[in-house]
Amino acid sequence: GLFAPLLLSGAGERLADAAHIEVNGTTIALTTDSFVVRPLTFPGGSIGELAVNGTMNDLAVSAAKACAILVTFVLEEGLASSVLEAEVRAMSAALERAGVAMVGGDTKVVERGKADGMYITTAGIGSPLPGVHIDARAVRPGDKVLLSGPIGDHGITILLARAELDLEADLRSDTRSVLPLVEAMAAEAGPGIRWMRDPTRGGVATSLNELARDCGLAVELQEEEIPLRDEVRGACELLGLDPLHIANEGQFLAVVEPAFADIALHALRRADGGQDARIIGQICEEPANAVLVKTRYR
Amino acid sequence: GLFAPLLLSGAGERLADAAHIEVNGTTIALTTDSFVVRPLTFPGGSIGELAVNGTMNDLAVSAAKACAILVTFVLEEGLASSVLEAEVRAMSAALERAGVAMVGGDTKVVERGKADGMYITTAGIGSPLPGVHIDARAVRPGDKVLLSGPIGDHGITILLARAELDLEADLRSDTRSVLPLVEAMAAEAGPGIRWMRDPTRGGVATSLNELARDCGLAVELQEEEIPLRDEVRGACELLGLDPLHIANEGQFLAVVEPAFADIALHALRRADGGQDARIIGQICEEPANAVLVKTRYR
Repeated sequence: GLFAPLLLSGAGERLADAAHIEVNGTTIALTTDSFVVRPLTFPGGSIGELAVNGTMNDLAVSAAKACAILVTFVLEEGLASSVLEAEVRAMSAALERAGVAMVGGDTKVVERGKADGMYITTAGIGSPLPGVHIDARAVRPGDKVLLSGPIGDHGITILLARAELDLEADLRSDTRSVLPLVEAMAAEAGPGIRWMRDPTRGGVATSLNELARDCGLAVELQEEEIPLRDEVRGACELLGLDPLHIANEGQFLAVVEPAFADIALHALRRADGGQDARIIGQICEEPANAVLVKTRYR
Repeated sequence: GLFAPLLLSGAGERLADAAHIEVNGTTIALTTDSFVVRPLTFPGGSIGELAVNGTMNDLAVSAAKACAILVTFVLEEGLASSVLEAEVRAMSAALERAGVAMVGGDTKVVERGKADGMYITTAGIGSPLPGVHIDARAVRPGDKVLLSGPIGDHGITILLARAELDLEADLRSDTRSVLPLVEAMAAEAGPGIRWMRDPTRGGVATSLNELARDCGLAVELQEEEIPLRDEVRGACELLGLDPLHIANEGQFLAVVEPAFADIALHALRRADGGQDARIIGQICEEPANAVLVKTRYR
């Protein structure tokens, strides 16, 4: 209500994970994200890795491949240099795995007690994946909703790592680049992909509600098709949380037209890390702007 | 020692205000900066305006014109919405003045006591100004050093605004976009421009020391040619500060080859806000990697 009308040109447009702009006739994709995470490291990852993967993923789900990343650090005075070095190394490793260059950055130091150790902001510039066009307005009744793998791992891992709960579970953040999965799917089903999103903060429910609003249709999910680890299911039941609202850092949702749905699913399942992909629902005409879940025991 | 070797590809290169990369055959300029300012508003400007102008200026002095900006806010819980709205409006006004679009952003909220109200990070994407090539290695003995206007206004304004000093002065931050000045100079003296930099944190001294290091030559300044307001000179004398080390937000330095120096100077002086531009020094063979100041009273 404040940022979009005042700051974003084309404020009427749907907000996606990345903007596409033209520079001298070439389309590039742009995205940015600030990372504030407590604790800085957690099973399966750390803030530095998240900051790289998160930005690459925002580009990937807007059908773009990261070609360069910028980073700024806001560092708390007195932060142990070993902690900073570990995060810089984590970022470096994530960049190397992805074959992406860090081309610039900035560092600011703030007073002790501020900034929770460090905040990291990354911006990513990407090149569009050819043959894939993402637009919620192109989504049609009958389209299938795909999910790349089990949900809730990241959010529940962070909750447990804060150690404010007397719970333990053998669980790791799912932080990873989803670009290889997106590329595998796009290679075989590119023309059928109509929408993608990585369900981070707010989880699958928030992403699909945004989709429903933007396409003006209904999203109908089959709850029993949504992949979920026992540890996540158990923690959610104990804590009264809905896994559909828990954050993920290494999964994505896709809406694919019916003729390409099985092709897309099999492309994902054959790719490394995509074996748990599922079709979890479909797009329906009504009720407009809503997400429905067909539950297990109705 | 930590960031460049681990994170930046081509770590051997000189670090400039913006990186230039190729995307599908088109060169784009990229820059990013985090803004942490206390107080958030000060005579002549505010953090929101700085965040926009600072990123446009980093692009401008790397000979690029901003075509899109991304922003992220880290907001302290409990920040008055009027304070946030004022900064969003300040950003919006700065963008409108510059004719640049904000194409995306992100907001995170952190606990009360963190983040000094707000931190703002901006990233800018620019299109290269045709016919201008910036490279410290191209700087030669005899080249002239130009400065766009009086120095120290921003840093001294912030010092006074913190009210930790019992000093008052009729002074305002010089925050502005320097792009119009850079464009005016480039239009007439483009092929003669060899290096530019906006002397923000660390001031003119730091920027010129980086130049001396990167070109391997000496920078010789005539102190009496460096424009300085009486208020800044007075505050610096009282506080024992060197104006060459005080931050600026609306000035830039340029090194121009001799044949173009007067052309560049007059182009600047004719442009709106450039009437105080001066040639403040020149490049010499020796002593290598050093900045010398010929003082007023030697």
